[in-house]
Amino acid sequence: MTERTRTSSGFFVTREAPIHADDPVATPTAPPPDIVRAAYAELVVTDLARSREFYVDVLGMSVTEEDENAVYLRTLEEFIHHNLVIRRGPVAALAALSYRVRTPEDLDRAVAFYTELGCRTERRAEGFTKGIGDSVRVVDPLGFPYEFFYETEHVERLAWRYDLYTPGALVRLDHFNQVTPDVPRAVKHYQDLGFRVTEDIQDEAGTTYAAWMRRKPTVHDTATTGGDGPRLHHVAFATHEKHNILAICDKLGALRLSDRIERGPGRHGVSNAFYLYLRDPDGHRIEIYTQDYYTGDPDNPVVTWDVHDNQRRDWWGTPVVPSWYTEASLVLDLDGNPQPVVSRTDSSELEVTIGADGFSYTRELGDEDLPDWKKGEYKLGHQL
Amino acid sequence: MTERTRTSSGFFVTREAPIHADDPVATPTAPPPDIVRAAYAELVVTDLARSREFYVDVLGMSVTEEDENAVYLRTLEEFIHHNLVIRRGPVAALAALSYRVRTPEDLDRAVAFYTELGCRTERRAEGFTKGIGDSVRVVDPLGFPYEFFYETEHVERLAWRYDLYTPGALVRLDHFNQVTPDVPRAVKHYQDLGFRVTEDIQDEAGTTYAAWMRRKPTVHDTATTGGDGPRLHHVAFATHEKHNILAICDKLGALRLSDRIERGPGRHGVSNAFYLYLRDPDGHRIEIYTQDYYTGDPDNPVVTWDVHDNQRRDWWGTPVVPSWYTEASLVLDLDGNPQPVVSRTDSSELEVTIGADGFSYTRELGDEDLPDWKKGEYKLGHQL
Amino acid sequence: MTERTRTSSGFFVTREAPIHADDPVATPTAPPPDIVRAAYAELVVTDLARSREFYVDVLGMSVTEEDENAVYLRTLEEFIHHNLVIRRGPVAALAALSYRVRTPEDLDRAVAFYTELGCRTERRAEGFTKGIGDSVRVVDPLGFPYEFFYETEHVERLAWRYDLYTPGALVRLDHFNQVTPDVPRAVKHYQDLGFRVTEDIQDEAGTTYAAWMRRKPTVHDTATTGGDGPRLHHVAFATHEKHNILAICDKLGALRLSDRIERGPGRHGVSNAFYLYLRDPDGHRIEIYTQDYYTGDPDNPVVTWDVHDNQRRDWWGTPVVPSWYTEASLVLDLDGNPQPVVSRTDSSELEVTIGADGFSYTRELGDEDLPDWKKGEYKLGHQL
Amino acid sequence: MTERTRTSSGFFVTREAPIHADDPVATPTAPPPDIVRAAYAELVVTDLARSREFYVDVLGMSVTEEDENAVYLRTLEEFIHHNLVIRRGPVAALAALSYRVRTPEDLDRAVAFYTELGCRTERRAEGFTKGIGDSVRVVDPLGFPYEFFYETEHVERLAWRYDLYTPGALVRLDHFNQVTPDVPRAVKHYQDLGFRVTEDIQDEAGTTYAAWMRRKPTVHDTATTGGDGPRLHHVAFATHEKHNILAICDKLGALRLSDRIERGPGRHGVSNAFYLYLRDPDGHRIEIYTQDYYTGDPDNPVVTWDVHDNQRRDWWGTPVVPSWYTEASLVLDLDGNPQPVVSRTDSSELEVTIGADGFSYTRELGDEDLPDWKKGEYKLGHQL
Repeated sequence: MTERTRTSSGFFVTREAPIHADDPVATPTAPPPDIVRAAYAELVVTDLARSREFYVDVLGMSVTEEDENAVYLRTLEEFIHHNLVIRRGPVAALAALSYRVRTPEDLDRAVAFYTELGCRTERRAEGFTKGIGDSVRVVDPLGFPYEFFYETEHVERLAWRYDLYTPGALVRLDHFNQVTPDVPRAVKHYQDLGFRVTEDIQDEAGTTYAAWMRRKPTVHDTATTGGDGPRLHHVAFATHEKHNILAICDKLGALRLSDRIERGPGRHGVSNAFYLYLRDPDGHRIEIYTQDYYTGDPDNPVVTWDVHDNQRRDWWGTPVVPSWYTEASLVLDLDGNPQPVVSRTDSSELEVTIGADGFSYTRELGDEDLPDWKKGEYKLGHQL
Repeated sequence: MTERTRTSSGFFVTREAPIHADDPVATPTAPPPDIVRAAYAELVVTDLARSREFYVDVLGMSVTEEDENAVYLRTLEEFIHHNLVIRRGPVAALAALSYRVRTPEDLDRAVAFYTELGCRTERRAEGFTKGIGDSVRVVDPLGFPYEFFYETEHVERLAWRYDLYTPGALVRLDHFNQVTPDVPRAVKHYQDLGFRVTEDIQDEAGTTYAAWMRRKPTVHDTATTGGDGPRLHHVAFATHEKHNILAICDKLGALRLSDRIERGPGRHGVSNAFYLYLRDPDGHRIEIYTQDYYTGDPDNPVVTWDVHDNQRRDWWGTPVVPSWYTEASLVLDLDGNPQPVVSRTDSSELEVTIGADGFSYTRELGDEDLPDWKKGEYKLGHQL
Repeated sequence: MTERTRTSSGFFVTREAPIHADDPVATPTAPPPDIVRAAYAELVVTDLARSREFYVDVLGMSVTEEDENAVYLRTLEEFIHHNLVIRRGPVAALAALSYRVRTPEDLDRAVAFYTELGCRTERRAEGFTKGIGDSVRVVDPLGFPYEFFYETEHVERLAWRYDLYTPGALVRLDHFNQVTPDVPRAVKHYQDLGFRVTEDIQDEAGTTYAAWMRRKPTVHDTATTGGDGPRLHHVAFATHEKHNILAICDKLGALRLSDRIERGPGRHGVSNAFYLYLRDPDGHRIEIYTQDYYTGDPDNPVVTWDVHDNQRRDWWGTPVVPSWYTEASLVLDLDGNPQPVVSRTDSSELEVTIGADGFSYTRELGDEDLPDWKKGEYKLGHQL
Repeated sequence: MTERTRTSSGFFVTREAPIHADDPVATPTAPPPDIVRAAYAELVVTDLARSREFYVDVLGMSVTEEDENAVYLRTLEEFIHHNLVIRRGPVAALAALSYRVRTPEDLDRAVAFYTELGCRTERRAEGFTKGIGDSVRVVDPLGFPYEFFYETEHVERLAWRYDLYTPGALVRLDHFNQVTPDVPRAVKHYQDLGFRVTEDIQDEAGTTYAAWMRRKPTVHDTATTGGDGPRLHHVAFATHEKHNILAICDKLGALRLSDRIERGPGRHGVSNAFYLYLRDPDGHRIEIYTQDYYTGDPDNPVVTWDVHDNQRRDWWGTPVVPSWYTEASLVLDLDGNPQPVVSRTDSSELEVTIGADGFSYTRELGDEDLPDWKKGEYKLGHQL
């Protein structure tokens, strides 16, 4: 592991992400497209009306446009046509993670970049979804369906339309999260694509369990979580304040849909954001997220968490429910067929931290500076 | 069960609490003292410095006065001398639950009321704690150490002293919660003492698992939770807003004391309040609580929850950790000896709702008006 | 002035309100009715549809019932039929301030109390508005139309119906505020009716400018503001949190109705509550209010503010707009005719604190303990 | 004016800022340095202890380092050495607005860029302040002291240290705001320096009153406000939530320093952020700011507000206090001498919108789609 500094909060910071890939994807000689930000996800759902009810009536997203096969949705601060598409299909899955690029020419770069990697690419001048123009879709080296576009129809940014706000109003798409068996391999590839690591989770042996990577200056535009993959872990939307997230929980309770809440609300250790995880009617996981920090400096400190630190995933030490580690959405290839899932061979975060063989600490053992009463108490022991 | 109306939120309301005691405490002919509100708790702690750190440095309570044996604490809106006393002692326990009465003469009524019940009573003109004058302490028929007082030293209400506020500022003592084996017996007795039921949890067979009772017009000044008792379940302090409660969690994380968080934060079904449960260094449970509703009308509707309703204890369906049901503080008699604990013989809420034989529903089964996707999904199944 | 203590926040506390009436209303020998709380106001509006739009579409109140002449509205935590009635009429005015009493027999007490005072009283077994039973209406000695009732139709308390909450959700009626020329005379009379003073504004000469009085244990059920009267100053509804009040402002901006905002949002000195004043389409003033403090103790300290303390009306020193002092709603007699308005002869708070002759201080002049830079700066000087 | 679209909120959006400079600064042939973000301001204060009290004890900023001449301060999420320096000096003034650049080589670009413009530049390998390395300072063509640096000492980002948070915790430096006589000239020059316009205020005749410009993807890193200049209008720091800003006001009230509040709190029309303006002991204006929107897309819509729209500066229509328009801090040249102030010759926003000749509307006049009651009411008329 590279030189690192332990913070007063218990985690470590380094100047560069100390992640080494043993089985890297080759780095193309072609430059990557200049990605601005995570822009939208296209989810295939099995019952469009039921999903529309969840995203529109429960979560309060705005409908830009819809037809019998798809609903194009956006949050209140978005000015491009949509930041979520739900499309009717036979199998619940992710159809695309779509990124906005800086110029129309970046599409040519995307084609060259992935072609050199031997990936299947498809370009459509008219776009793959309504409201989006010339676009490139690929199956990336990790098996994920990625899209790149510049052209889009502008719609009204509804940020000032407080008459449309609900107590749990969603304002932005924040990030994606992808499940992949080999996290360092994925990180190395996405670094080649221009992403920078902001935080990660490792253990003393150097196993990397998860990493967060950004283009826009937040903690992430996408993250990779170790597990059987390629699968989609979640898509995250932002609210302005924490009470907005609590209001979503309250509303789900009022609708007797509290079982749509999978995990949280809570405070993340990683990212320092306040969070909530929901499951949509097909089981697609949606995070509601607010208040991470600015990461735009070229030397933004990289945060590394010990996988055994019980506050890494939840700063309050609340245990992560197992389904959050094990369940995820299938992803489609460019023909709409689910990609096969490859098992993770590295250690599982679930296994090393929860259950019979796992352990987590709230405070580091052997920290002799702590008074006795601060030592050696484990929240999990209180709870299970 | 008496006539009741099902609300659109899934629970029931009645005009009077439909609780029948099979083994009631006798109703005295003497009128009860006129209780204004739950005023303070006296907790015995085994390490005074460590407890002081928790209540003052972590929770931000103000010290009115202290000596080598005790610290007298108050929240920001309190004008009486203290609303919590922590006193050094050999065994962690509750020494007294203290209620303010309306007039000095109510102390005479308290003596007569409990004397008629055959309870041991002790009256001290100089009070049992600093800052409190003429007081009566009793061991009540349920085994709890109750205190009544009118005289108290006024101290400055610090409500306007925003320079003293912390992000998790506590403003009022809200209520107590007592564990007792026979809930209907306890309810009947506290009704005799002048309390009114606002909410309860029952099952179809009429077993009562818990009840909430008030003097001041909030959901409760005290509650009884079924379990082995007499024991103290918790003492609750109020914040102004929900983010104050989240801030306490954040701070505990920063201090690497997140294992002091036992349950929550969350939204109660019962009381509709936002909550958090902490454990102090001795394991005394402290609730942080905000935003229940006004109950002062003489015909305030009584809310009855089905014990199997998965949203009764947490409106978001988050499972209750078992320790919350099973652990509680010993209570002392007037000589400072722990009261023996009697086992509950009625059904256990833990057992009927969690684990192998228990069940809970998010939506009522067989509700044919629901679409298919709203039926029969159980959050616990997602999580365990 | 009686013995008083100066607090560290700059105002004074006494054990009893030091208000003396030179021209008191006689104290009846008959006991007053036992008032539980301020329950509802009946406002006459000149355009029912336009007013309905304001209260329902903008403020989000729930309609319990309506017909061509009136709309019966309630907030989310109310279980009695309504806490606001808007009724169509030729002149915008207050028709009644209605209080709930503890028992049906309290109506007999109300009749006896006001009859002894020589006030016109009218009792209707069927009530004066829908949803309310046997009621007494009077023109009280100060000229205000007061109502008392016990019987009411229960409706569902919507507190748990978070699917109905808006970002600015109103949960309770909190209080009324009445403009009257002689504040001490009004205070003395309402004390006879059973109210207790919690706070007041005075000057060194003993002139009382306003007083706050309560039955339920909040800062007030009603207040009297010195001015030409009898007139209604405002009716106040409570939200849970401060952001709810900000959301109402944001929504009014989005609707291009920001000129409905008359004053605030801000923090009151008196009451310590967070506030906002709106004007409805007829100019009736509505306060939105949250987070005052508990006042239920029999010896609750009475707070007295100096009229020249610039933080008494707004803790942040924001100037009060003149219309807030000068404008108010007419009140009706039992025949529906506007009561004549009598001019105030005591000093005007507006004149002694704002404008050419008025002065206010942020810090007390001559406080030699302050560093120089804390002395003698006046916010009004910065602003006008 | 270029093609523009009126939004449903009443302002206009265009694809490019429609600002034309009649008297432009020449565009250098040398490329500008690549600015990452506004990084810190250096303010000269006349009483260092008194200013330290304001920034540290009142606002809660963290001291990274200090000596007898200067205090180096940072907010909780900052990892570079400081984002505010207060330095003792004879005249209260701005010493530098400092921007972080992407690479060390950008300093060479800065020197070339400003040298070509004929501006005085000074480069110091050891930096101008502690904690900052190799730096370039210039007096820019508008007379402002600008600094550029890459090298800095990293300090701990205290974002997770919730034990250090106060209720009004500041987390980031957000932006600067500069007063300049000729706004289009300033905008054109800062566009040459690489800034992009996000919002502006104009009138029908094409006069530009103010413009907001960004490097990082928020509404601004700096803004130019029309007035006598060069002067510093304010430096802005961000909080996480709106209640944090309210807490600062509450604390200032508790400290009897409410006259430090100049304007707000309120909701901006421009930027949609929630705001508060304070004046430090020397009169330097500090804004507290939260929750503007993401602007990082290359075609981010530019918002243009009508100067007569009463909601442009405050979405709730609250009048702007005149001092906010007229008062500002002097700025220093590289020798530490105050720059001469040049009068604005274009129309004054204060004059065209407030007072005898000014007018503002809440709703556009003549909008025949509005019901009568929504027309022609002016908040200022209610208030003054």
